Amino acid sequence: MIKLIPTRIPIKVGDKYIVVLNENSAQKLDLHAGDRVLIKNGKKAEIRALLDVTENGEIRDTQIGLYIETWEKLKAKRGDRLSISVAEKPISILYIKDKLKGKKLTKEQIDEIIKDVVEEDLSDVEISYFVAACYINKLSEEETVNLTKSIVEHGSTLKFDKKIVVDKHCIGGVAGNRTTMIAVPILTALGLTMPKTSSRAITSPAGTADTMEVLCNVTVPGPKLQEIADKVGGFIAWGGGVDLAAADDKMIRARHPLSLDPEGMLLASIMAKKHSVSSTHVLIDIPVGKQTKIKTRAEGKRLAKKFTSLGKKLGMVVEVMLSKGEEPVGNGVGPILEAIDVMKVLKDKKDAPQDLKQKGIEMSGQLLELCGKAKRGKGEAIARKVLESGLAYKQMMRIIKAQGESKIKLIPGKYTMDILAKKSGKITGLNNRLISHIARTAGAPKDKGAGVYIHKKLKDTVKAGEVLYTIHADVEERLKYSEEYKINEVYTIK
Amino acid sequence: MIKLIPTRIPIKVGDKYIVVLNENSAQKLDLHAGDRVLIKNGKKAEIRALLDVTENGEIRDTQIGLYIETWEKLKAKRGDRLSISVAEKPISILYIKDKLKGKKLTKEQIDEIIKDVVEEDLSDVEISYFVAACYINKLSEEETVNLTKSIVEHGSTLKFDKKIVVDKHCIGGVAGNRTTMIAVPILTALGLTMPKTSSRAITSPAGTADTMEVLCNVTVPGPKLQEIADKVGGFIAWGGGVDLAAADDKMIRARHPLSLDPEGMLLASIMAKKHSVSSTHVLIDIPVGKQTKIKTRAEGKRLAKKFTSLGKKLGMVVEVMLSKGEEPVGNGVGPILEAIDVMKVLKDKKDAPQDLKQKGIEMSGQLLELCGKAKRGKGEAIARKVLESGLAYKQMMRIIKAQGESKIKLIPGKYTMDILAKKSGKITGLNNRLISHIARTAGAPKDKGAGVYIHKKLKDTVKAGEVLYTIHADVEERLKYSEEYKINEVYTIK
Repeated sequence: MIKLIPTRIPIKVGDKYIVVLNENSAQKLDLHAGDRVLIKNGKKAEIRALLDVTENGEIRDTQIGLYIETWEKLKAKRGDRLSISVAEKPISILYIKDKLKGKKLTKEQIDEIIKDVVEEDLSDVEISYFVAACYINKLSEEETVNLTKSIVEHGSTLKFDKKIVVDKHCIGGVAGNRTTMIAVPILTALGLTMPKTSSRAITSPAGTADTMEVLCNVTVPGPKLQEIADKVGGFIAWGGGVDLAAADDKMIRARHPLSLDPEGMLLASIMAKKHSVSSTHVLIDIPVGKQTKIKTRAEGKRLAKKFTSLGKKLGMVVEVMLSKGEEPVGNGVGPILEAIDVMKVLKDKKDAPQDLKQKGIEMSGQLLELCGKAKRGKGEAIARKVLESGLAYKQMMRIIKAQGESKIKLIPGKYTMDILAKKSGKITGLNNRLISHIARTAGAPKDKGAGVYIHKKLKDTVKAGEVLYTIHADVEERLKYSEEYKINEVYTIK
Repeated sequence: MIKLIPTRIPIKVGDKYIVVLNENSAQKLDLHAGDRVLIKNGKKAEIRALLDVTENGEIRDTQIGLYIETWEKLKAKRGDRLSISVAEKPISILYIKDKLKGKKLTKEQIDEIIKDVVEEDLSDVEISYFVAACYINKLSEEETVNLTKSIVEHGSTLKFDKKIVVDKHCIGGVAGNRTTMIAVPILTALGLTMPKTSSRAITSPAGTADTMEVLCNVTVPGPKLQEIADKVGGFIAWGGGVDLAAADDKMIRARHPLSLDPEGMLLASIMAKKHSVSSTHVLIDIPVGKQTKIKTRAEGKRLAKKFTSLGKKLGMVVEVMLSKGEEPVGNGVGPILEAIDVMKVLKDKKDAPQDLKQKGIEMSGQLLELCGKAKRGKGEAIARKVLESGLAYKQMMRIIKAQGESKIKLIPGKYTMDILAKKSGKITGLNNRLISHIARTAGAPKDKGAGVYIHKKLKDTVKAGEVLYTIHADVEERLKYSEEYKINEVYTIK
């Protein structure tokens, strides 16, 4: 058995274990890039890893390169001698190939794939073949149900001793859309259980978790979340902090390069997150608009049917709401700016953004009707009353305290730049994507005060010289970055 | 514009340019893993690269990690300050997505993909999506023709002032199958032009290029190859040394993890290599057997039709030979052992492996008939005469001299181990794959003398205790590695 000298490669590669040999030693050992190998560090540690092969050069014939995670897991030190041997490829590779060939996968086969995704035993290339197979050969409803279950079973779950657990999800694409932070306090104020896990921004200026984080801690371990829900009825926490649906995040990474959204995977991804917190009644918000994922109402309705049918198979009552996706919801875009909007709505201030208030009330009303807490047509009025009476605000404060109040002050970034209308007229277009991009380059979501405040919305009329929107930044030079982008192309005025 | 401090990552990643930012700085710059970026090192150098993002830690907010190739290309030094900006994604990504959606690609679209493959502007994950798309949605014949042309156009080519240029190709899977080294001397001795480029072993114990390298230099630049072909009629060189069909090697890398052979890609890969050396008449050898790529004669015939039809569209006359693929051809497996077999055949020695001799003659005969140098049914006799008269041997020596004779002595690895029959009986099975694996672990193709010498072949009868095969190694301890493998399971004796 050859013994190799470990050499540390100062890069983190995520949770994966990757080791590197040079071409010479790989050839001698009859090993190839992509092979699975078993690495032993004497009796100290042993791991299964993916092999990378590099040209001869920096890594010598007697060495084995270990990326940071692998170095640490193996407890490697100078002077150690590691042994390497070939390990079997995961059987899930065969199932991925089966799906590429158009075969239907069984529950057991999907389980095997998801287990290997979670355990990082499949490479990015292999996962991308699974994504491609699901994209072209489509997942049947049965496969989608099984994929959803597999994702749930291979992640953490939360359970509640309640008959009704409500939940909502928005499939995204619209800036400032913080309805979760309106709906959760309304519904939990009415005694319902609503354990809401949310995501952080990936390509947007703020996810619900980023905005909620302005107000309180959102990284809360599972047992504590359960305690909070028992005490105040609900929470708004970062999903990534509880490791729910862990497989999903890893598959999303493989979908990113081509922006692939295989429908079955999209459905499973969303429903797994709901299923893993034991939701029984779920409202899905599908914004429809030229710049969102779903372009037409017909497309939205087709997808809605899939959601409700899949929900039934998983034992959940699911309803879909098709909403307007042509412009941001509310005025603020960016964590603090959005949190300000939300608190204004909950306090029912006069200058609160009415579109956000109305959408939050509608969603809450529909959820009340869905779970039988209100008669059809009566939910909205109940929700409005809870909001306008201040009950929802009080409830929000309870939730914030339970999660751990933050010390961040609700002050938008102090460096600002106003973008003025170049001509007078009526606003006929507002580029969602450009708004997001500008808010991000100004520093959102990392710089909490950074983002965009929208003064004028669709159908408003403006005079030349009036402020259309204001860019906020916490760091002065960030405004300069924004200047480089097409800040004058956000609005269409006719 | 932010300036970043270059930090060298001591790993070679192939010809790709990859740079690494930590999560903090990527987020600040609104960049994501997989993005294309433009990196400038002042006025010294500028490249387009792929971005990787690593967890915060070793790479600091002010740093940018450069793998060796990128470090060198950017002429980076301590004290340099690099600038980074986002670059457009290649448009070929859209075409790959189109193919995933089942659309037919035009010549221009395929060109764009192949250009980006060659220029390393597509990541492994993106190329694997192209492979998956071609695998599931199949390439039409027109697309295959265009893919072949694109591969040829984006690599080097060799041109000859001849009406007839003959060539052969074996789709592989059988050890010791060195018929090229018999056919090239026979056909060029008859005045034909035969510019043969061959591959090195990837997962086998020797490619033709590895075996020929025992006798002479095989890494010959294009202009020199042209000169040799003009002078002696042909050569047997390593294809990788001339950069013919460069795109192909990179796509093969992406096909490896799932061992995917999308038929259109396989066809294009082979035909591009023939087209790039201006071949006019081509014989394709398809070994049929349980352990080769093609399992049945029916499958072989179907593939044969595709080859001939594709050849016609590319202006080549193509014929296919279905050969036996149940056991190795010849007795030697490994570079020197195979070279000894070949030289024995060319010298027509009594102990030359007759199966290799016969297959070499048949192939040569069929090629003579194919290009009109012999009447149908008469080719084999002519080829046999050239071989048995010693003309082919003399011609081989001319080719060897022209390429540059090697100083390697034809002596098999001196450390040997005989594997004996455990019982008496008739040999009914010989595991090709296991033979290859044992030869590789003994050191082939890296250790030229390493490999396996096969004493007994299919249908032979053996007595318990007789030698079935001998393992040769140049390095004594390599025999020990072999012991670990299933050396007694190679033969089936009944």
